[in-house]
Amino acid sequence: MARFNKILVTGFSEQNLDNEVWDKIKKLSGKVVFEPVPDADCLFSRFNKVDKALIDSLPRLKYIGLLATGTGTIDLKYAKSKKITVCNIPGYATESVSEWVFALILEHLRRLEDAKKTARKSDFSGDGFTTSEILDKKFGIIGLGRIGYRVAKIAQGFGAKVSYWSRNRKPRAEKEGIKYESIDNLVKTSDFVSLHTLTTKDTENILDNKRINSLKKDAVVVNVSGMEQVNIPALAKRLAKKDITFILDHPDEMAKKDVEKLMRFSNCIVYPPIGFVSAEARANKQSIFVSNIENFLKGKPRNVVN
Amino acid sequence: MARFNKILVTGFSEQNLDNEVWDKIKKLSGKVVFEPVPDADCLFSRFNKVDKALIDSLPRLKYIGLLATGTGTIDLKYAKSKKITVCNIPGYATESVSEWVFALILEHLRRLEDAKKTARKSDFSGDGFTTSEILDKKFGIIGLGRIGYRVAKIAQGFGAKVSYWSRNRKPRAEKEGIKYESIDNLVKTSDFVSLHTLTTKDTENILDNKRINSLKKDAVVVNVSGMEQVNIPALAKRLAKKDITFILDHPDEMAKKDVEKLMRFSNCIVYPPIGFVSAEARANKQSIFVSNIENFLKGKPRNVVN
Repeated sequence: MARFNKILVTGFSEQNLDNEVWDKIKKLSGKVVFEPVPDADCLFSRFNKVDKALIDSLPRLKYIGLLATGTGTIDLKYAKSKKITVCNIPGYATESVSEWVFALILEHLRRLEDAKKTARKSDFSGDGFTTSEILDKKFGIIGLGRIGYRVAKIAQGFGAKVSYWSRNRKPRAEKEGIKYESIDNLVKTSDFVSLHTLTTKDTENILDNKRINSLKKDAVVVNVSGMEQVNIPALAKRLAKKDITFILDHPDEMAKKDVEKLMRFSNCIVYPPIGFVSAEARANKQSIFVSNIENFLKGKPRNVVN
Repeated sequence: MARFNKILVTGFSEQNLDNEVWDKIKKLSGKVVFEPVPDADCLFSRFNKVDKALIDSLPRLKYIGLLATGTGTIDLKYAKSKKITVCNIPGYATESVSEWVFALILEHLRRLEDAKKTARKSDFSGDGFTTSEILDKKFGIIGLGRIGYRVAKIAQGFGAKVSYWSRNRKPRAEKEGIKYESIDNLVKTSDFVSLHTLTTKDTENILDNKRINSLKKDAVVVNVSGMEQVNIPALAKRLAKKDITFILDHPDEMAKKDVEKLMRFSNCIVYPPIGFVSAEARANKQSIFVSNIENFLKGKPRNVVN
């Protein structure tokens, strides 16, 4: 198999890949370097910017391997014009994120943090605890991609009535009882709403003022997708009414003042972005990262995004 | 429809039933009393003892309505010998308890309490968080009654490989991919073990010393069923090895010293018994309680336990 001469690693460090993975990568190249060199023919990147200037500084570059799904940091068009292949890692954390959605919902419904606290005080009376079930509730999914679909299947396991809205209809999912609805109707009638659209110009502000106001009383909205998709001032106004719950896990991508604003509401529950951190997701990610490189070197690149 | 002359309520108070339910009950009897009267022909009971002495003190008694599933507090045989019909409320909280099992598992897997704490400190780095998925793991269920079966179906929604052991084989469940195994093999090979047997002489100590020692490394055991089924000294020894996690929610039924002993282990997570508290379960319970009375008065009793 062909090999690279020099791999330049940017945006991450040795710790982001397991030793065995580095061993494999070293066999696929003459050298792996972490400091800029002009003669690298392969570039690794994670969340760092790969712009015209960086691409121009590497005239021998043939391949960019992304250790991530999102490609927003890369100038894909310019890379293509220079005949550089860019590959990403789609769907490595599908299950990890899908299970996370139910962890967040159930923690809220069952008030587990409070429950643990009362138990630690040896109060086992259960006084004051009540909840509602997922069974027979309407579970609305916005964006039926890989994650949205798995969330739908798990919700069906719980016996929820599952509906979705997505840019494109999904006949296979519909055959399995996942019902298509207009987004306006979905938002207005669901007991649970889970956002699984990618952040693009089309989905920005998809939960706008009108839709946020139309949410059902006692609705639980989960957003593990990205807060650019939500009108934050409108959300804050609705949260102040105390008749919905909003759960999110990407505060790191929000303006600090917005995070602080939302966290003041007891009905807004904020987590760090740890939906994708399962051991299985980490293994998937590394194995796809390496096979992307191998496939490119064999002349049969996969997961090409440009 | 026939009516009772006097209903004597023991073991619970007015607050345990909604006002509308009391209204219905009042229509089914001449009088509802909370203090012992010798001429009651109907007795309500919850977790309180109904023994020979109590039964003998009520010579006109025809019916005992239990506001609970468990019948261990009632002298069923003696009631039968006096031609008293005893009815219970089976399965009212099936879904509430089944969903609870996954709340407990996911809270543990995702360390949600810690995650919330770091978020409150505005630490959104996610550093140190890792987890494992339910997908493709072996999920072993001991006791495939109503709750065990629903736990199995939800686990299948998560993509787990589900096996069960139960006193009787369940052909319908097996057709749906829920695999039968010997209890010894189930305990030894499952990543998740969930106990759903009723506490009887047969199930007492069902998780005995040998089985507890055979649990797989990193196994997560959930017991929302009753700690009489677990050998507590053996469990404590195994917990000390720090290679399994045990989650329970009925410390109120255990000796205080045992609860304190187990709670000292960070890998033993203790909750109050609040699995059954959903609004839906409460509604089911009350509606079955009333229809039990109505059916008895119509001469077609259901949910008879003696």
